[in-house]
Amino acid sequence: MIKVGIIGATGYAGQEIVRILQGHKNAEIVWYGSRSYIDKRYSAVFGNLFQIVDAQCLDDNMEVLAEAADVIFTATPQGLCGSLVNEEILEKVKIIDLSADFRIKDVSVYEEWYGIRHKSPQFLEEAVYGLCEINREQVRGARLVANPGCYTTCSILSFYPLVKEGLITPDSIIIDAKSGTSGAGRGAKVNNLFCEVNENMKAYGVLTHRHTPEIEEQLGYAAGTDVKVIFTPHLVPMNRGILVTGYGALTRPVTYEAVREIYDRYYGEERFIRLLDPDMCPETRWVEGSNYVDINFKIDERTGRIIVMGALDNIVKGAAGQAVQNMNLMFGLPETEGLEMVPMFP
Amino acid sequence: MIKVGIIGATGYAGQEIVRILQGHKNAEIVWYGSRSYIDKRYSAVFGNLFQIVDAQCLDDNMEVLAEAADVIFTATPQGLCGSLVNEEILEKVKIIDLSADFRIKDVSVYEEWYGIRHKSPQFLEEAVYGLCEINREQVRGARLVANPGCYTTCSILSFYPLVKEGLITPDSIIIDAKSGTSGAGRGAKVNNLFCEVNENMKAYGVLTHRHTPEIEEQLGYAAGTDVKVIFTPHLVPMNRGILVTGYGALTRPVTYEAVREIYDRYYGEERFIRLLDPDMCPETRWVEGSNYVDINFKIDERTGRIIVMGALDNIVKGAAGQAVQNMNLMFGLPETEGLEMVPMFP
Amino acid sequence: MIKVGIIGATGYAGQEIVRILQGHKNAEIVWYGSRSYIDKRYSAVFGNLFQIVDAQCLDDNMEVLAEAADVIFTATPQGLCGSLVNEEILEKVKIIDLSADFRIKDVSVYEEWYGIRHKSPQFLEEAVYGLCEINREQVRGARLVANPGCYTTCSILSFYPLVKEGLITPDSIIIDAKSGTSGAGRGAKVNNLFCEVNENMKAYGVLTHRHTPEIEEQLGYAAGTDVKVIFTPHLVPMNRGILVTGYGALTRPVTYEAVREIYDRYYGEERFIRLLDPDMCPETRWVEGSNYVDINFKIDERTGRIIVMGALDNIVKGAAGQAVQNMNLMFGLPETEGLEMVPMFP
Amino acid sequence: MIKVGIIGATGYAGQEIVRILQGHKNAEIVWYGSRSYIDKRYSAVFGNLFQIVDAQCLDDNMEVLAEAADVIFTATPQGLCGSLVNEEILEKVKIIDLSADFRIKDVSVYEEWYGIRHKSPQFLEEAVYGLCEINREQVRGARLVANPGCYTTCSILSFYPLVKEGLITPDSIIIDAKSGTSGAGRGAKVNNLFCEVNENMKAYGVLTHRHTPEIEEQLGYAAGTDVKVIFTPHLVPMNRGILVTGYGALTRPVTYEAVREIYDRYYGEERFIRLLDPDMCPETRWVEGSNYVDINFKIDERTGRIIVMGALDNIVKGAAGQAVQNMNLMFGLPETEGLEMVPMFP
Repeated sequence: MIKVGIIGATGYAGQEIVRILQGHKNAEIVWYGSRSYIDKRYSAVFGNLFQIVDAQCLDDNMEVLAEAADVIFTATPQGLCGSLVNEEILEKVKIIDLSADFRIKDVSVYEEWYGIRHKSPQFLEEAVYGLCEINREQVRGARLVANPGCYTTCSILSFYPLVKEGLITPDSIIIDAKSGTSGAGRGAKVNNLFCEVNENMKAYGVLTHRHTPEIEEQLGYAAGTDVKVIFTPHLVPMNRGILVTGYGALTRPVTYEAVREIYDRYYGEERFIRLLDPDMCPETRWVEGSNYVDINFKIDERTGRIIVMGALDNIVKGAAGQAVQNMNLMFGLPETEGLEMVPMFP
Repeated sequence: MIKVGIIGATGYAGQEIVRILQGHKNAEIVWYGSRSYIDKRYSAVFGNLFQIVDAQCLDDNMEVLAEAADVIFTATPQGLCGSLVNEEILEKVKIIDLSADFRIKDVSVYEEWYGIRHKSPQFLEEAVYGLCEINREQVRGARLVANPGCYTTCSILSFYPLVKEGLITPDSIIIDAKSGTSGAGRGAKVNNLFCEVNENMKAYGVLTHRHTPEIEEQLGYAAGTDVKVIFTPHLVPMNRGILVTGYGALTRPVTYEAVREIYDRYYGEERFIRLLDPDMCPETRWVEGSNYVDINFKIDERTGRIIVMGALDNIVKGAAGQAVQNMNLMFGLPETEGLEMVPMFP
Repeated sequence: MIKVGIIGATGYAGQEIVRILQGHKNAEIVWYGSRSYIDKRYSAVFGNLFQIVDAQCLDDNMEVLAEAADVIFTATPQGLCGSLVNEEILEKVKIIDLSADFRIKDVSVYEEWYGIRHKSPQFLEEAVYGLCEINREQVRGARLVANPGCYTTCSILSFYPLVKEGLITPDSIIIDAKSGTSGAGRGAKVNNLFCEVNENMKAYGVLTHRHTPEIEEQLGYAAGTDVKVIFTPHLVPMNRGILVTGYGALTRPVTYEAVREIYDRYYGEERFIRLLDPDMCPETRWVEGSNYVDINFKIDERTGRIIVMGALDNIVKGAAGQAVQNMNLMFGLPETEGLEMVPMFP
Repeated sequence: MIKVGIIGATGYAGQEIVRILQGHKNAEIVWYGSRSYIDKRYSAVFGNLFQIVDAQCLDDNMEVLAEAADVIFTATPQGLCGSLVNEEILEKVKIIDLSADFRIKDVSVYEEWYGIRHKSPQFLEEAVYGLCEINREQVRGARLVANPGCYTTCSILSFYPLVKEGLITPDSIIIDAKSGTSGAGRGAKVNNLFCEVNENMKAYGVLTHRHTPEIEEQLGYAAGTDVKVIFTPHLVPMNRGILVTGYGALTRPVTYEAVREIYDRYYGEERFIRLLDPDMCPETRWVEGSNYVDINFKIDERTGRIIVMGALDNIVKGAAGQAVQNMNLMFGLPETEGLEMVPMFP
């Protein structure tokens, strides 16, 4: 039985790890870390877990936790994991960091976009970018996994085969993304109040959103060259879900079937990627509560562009589900263990 | 492996049976009946089940189905099950009817409130009212189970111990109930369009809702006398969930602790009923996607009344989940098999 | 031109006063008070008023404001108005207080339910309870008006004729109320975040909500005797609207027509009360954005009770609209000036 | 007093014309046409207008209506207006058609995208495309106005100055648009049920949406050359509002200030276009219920592209409000009459 500690267990992603692990055969949670709710019963914060989880919230002491756990999930704001981790800890415990601290290899890029100093740049090289479908082998051997961002997971998986195969010009990528509000976290902010979000649609962080360099770096590896994307996130009045509508200029005329064949080659065997039938558009409702990413595309012969669409649940495949998927890989378990939730509709 | 047939598989309750049975170890679906979508792929109707369910929708032929299945769920409008069932069928297959056809013992009451003639009154006596927590033993031996209504399940379970113990005067019960919109079904009606439901709150069917006689009959059995309730349903702009706020006049002064002891006696061992801690109010978000009913109450000494509150997911414990729970009982399986879904939040 | 000052201009009620007064012929706003946003442009807080309101937010200085304005609206938390008002100010300016400070005549009741000391009990007797349809004449001559609560307005107006005419037993009243989330204010609280409210229904403040004594006091005046009500508020995932479903025991058998005649007598000439046709239930969508209260009722002969239903927009008739209606009365203007907004649907 | 007839008065756009005209000094509605609700009271269909509109629904008889009215709004499905209009009618009455029948000059393009035969191509040349801010003068003299589509209004107004000034390459335009659900109309369709739309985000009509050729034609006039756009509409779980996020490649390096100056030149005097301050993004909540279009843009030096954002209320500026604005122009009234509604928030 893998002993799991969670730092940041009372955020939306932390709670989702808890929910998912209730159905996991090989893991048990030994530490519910939450600075804001120390000594409070976990199920008093999340009533859905009443009579399911019988534990108190604990402090965020990574030193102590490293002794008690086999793996630590840090579902915390940027900077925290980087400030706590050290070699001694990493020798005792594996870490899956859901923040951005170890996602970007170039520390200056991280510091520029996030506006904070990185406290542990020495682990950047070691850290593995935990996008399982792409970096599966590296994840298996990792001590420290940087769990990808929600927008990023959806954007990269949607575009990866096209970029890797050189089918689109790297500087032509535009990603218009829409996210449910749980992506904004559980902090008490006026902007995220019900009456501010409900009955509204807006773009935010236009040209400045922090997932931009993460997408560019990973797609850059695929392209083998620098990639510059325009990434525009939007806030949608719904709880869960990310929808990416992406645009790119084709490098040559292609048919739907030819492109489909490429996607099949990359993702045909992937348990959590569903390539939809022609003319079906991904919808967030069809993936809600599950670890699936639904992907499809359309080719516009009139303009020589391709429209790529992806949908996932931002808290599952975009955060907690992928984190558990990474844990499964790191501990040699079946990759799908605990993750076969059927999407819930309506 | 129990072979399951579903008639009405493309309604919300039918689909939820499908979703739940994906996680059931002892059951497999052999028939997805849906008159409206015959020969259409099931996953083309419900995209959440893409690559999970690989079957076509079939006609509603109960004769043929009785040969193919061990149990039939009828998740259809009132009148259909009553018009199809006969002795020959019941000798071959068990039936769990999610409509109201076999819920009310008095055929004249049924015909008055539903405004249709009952086609199979001869099975009314045999049919067992499938409220598992109350009629568990009878369900085990049943061939034909009348699966309770969603409002009814929540109302009866909330009030049952009080009525059974004579703690409230039977004619004082007022049930003010609030339901998510999936309870209105998947039929294409203007009243259920997004823009008609969203940003609105209304009562409907005031004094005339069909779940009234069902509640009165069942609470009457508990009281050992006639019970007349005022039942006021409301439509809430959310997908799932029923919240019941009930009021009753106490027959004698009681403490919270004394009443709690009674509830504990009735429900303390029930896996799917959660009696909340004092001062916690049931909320639909904490049961969403699960088979739980959350119950609590408050005593108003100023007016000598008790306020009883219950919350459940109308499609799960209020329909499909309870139907599967009944199936488990009828086939001698563990009652919780396939039903241990953790509520999903947010 | 009446000069208007608003203290608490950046809450939802304060902003609605601003919105309404844009269409008022005889009033202009001279002071946008908001401690949290001092010196910030008002339209930077509420983008709907961009290029409509060109003013900065100011401090809450009632002394200075009393010189500048003819009337002050205090749309602030409990206790503030009571702590600022004094005789000198009241000699210079009329005050319409949207908080609870002057709603309850008995200072001990106020202090018990609100848990704070009243700073100006000397004005309690003078203050007029500004429920225009009932206290119209007293409002006309008032210096200080206590603008009623949102739940209270809906509850009292719905029940008033019945109580006044002795048609229901005073201790039988149960008010099951449902409110949109703007009623919870614009403060940054986890409980009011989008993901906490959306897809949820809950009761709160059961038996302890502060509008209870306000309802009891006002209905007590109508009944000529003490009234004890059970009042259960619920939070609904929508922005605006209050729906009251009320229950009471009839003192004698009556017909729908007889009761309707009574309502007609009380409200037939009221511009902002709409008595619906038989069998129509009030719905919040039909009053959204307007100053209307929609009322109807049904009689349950089976149990000898009446069900009274009322709907209003909590920010308009339940707060800002009623406040402007009070202002119109206090300044001798047509009562409907600025308030003839047609409800907006969808 | 202008006598107004509405054909299709019980759709969302038709009802909004009714709501707006309640506040219009120079117009009165004499005909509420609605095939589906003939002889039914209008306020029984739209309860918001109870005691405000006292009229029955009538048939869609344009011959008779032409005698009774000075102007006819046709808020009906494509094809109806084209099938009813003739020279005799146009000699008696002005027509503002909210359908697409007269928006596209090239009848073959219309017939291809809409899949129906045009019944009155002889009026296509005469019809004026009623985008007031661009075609103001032509509208004044028109007998027949083609009221623009909702997506179209938002898209064209957002891009017009850029295209007209040659600042972006015509074939580089990508329009990613998001619409509230009222844009889908009031027809009873499963896809528009609350539970299907709520908690979901999807693209639809990808590369095939009918507003595409309308946008291309109008932007083509501005560019003086053929324009091909990619237009991707999305359905958002909210009632009202359209948000356009548009992308285009700049033809030369420009500063924010330079582009802003251009927008100011085109729209600085426009009452219903609000150019936001730098770094403010348009949000649909700030225009809800009003005739405003909020516009802003950002320049991406990294990729040489411009992001243009526009927001409007699809039923007001995107349909009924613009129709009334056209009526005002056609009858020589102040253009803003009846249209100065302040956006309602929350």
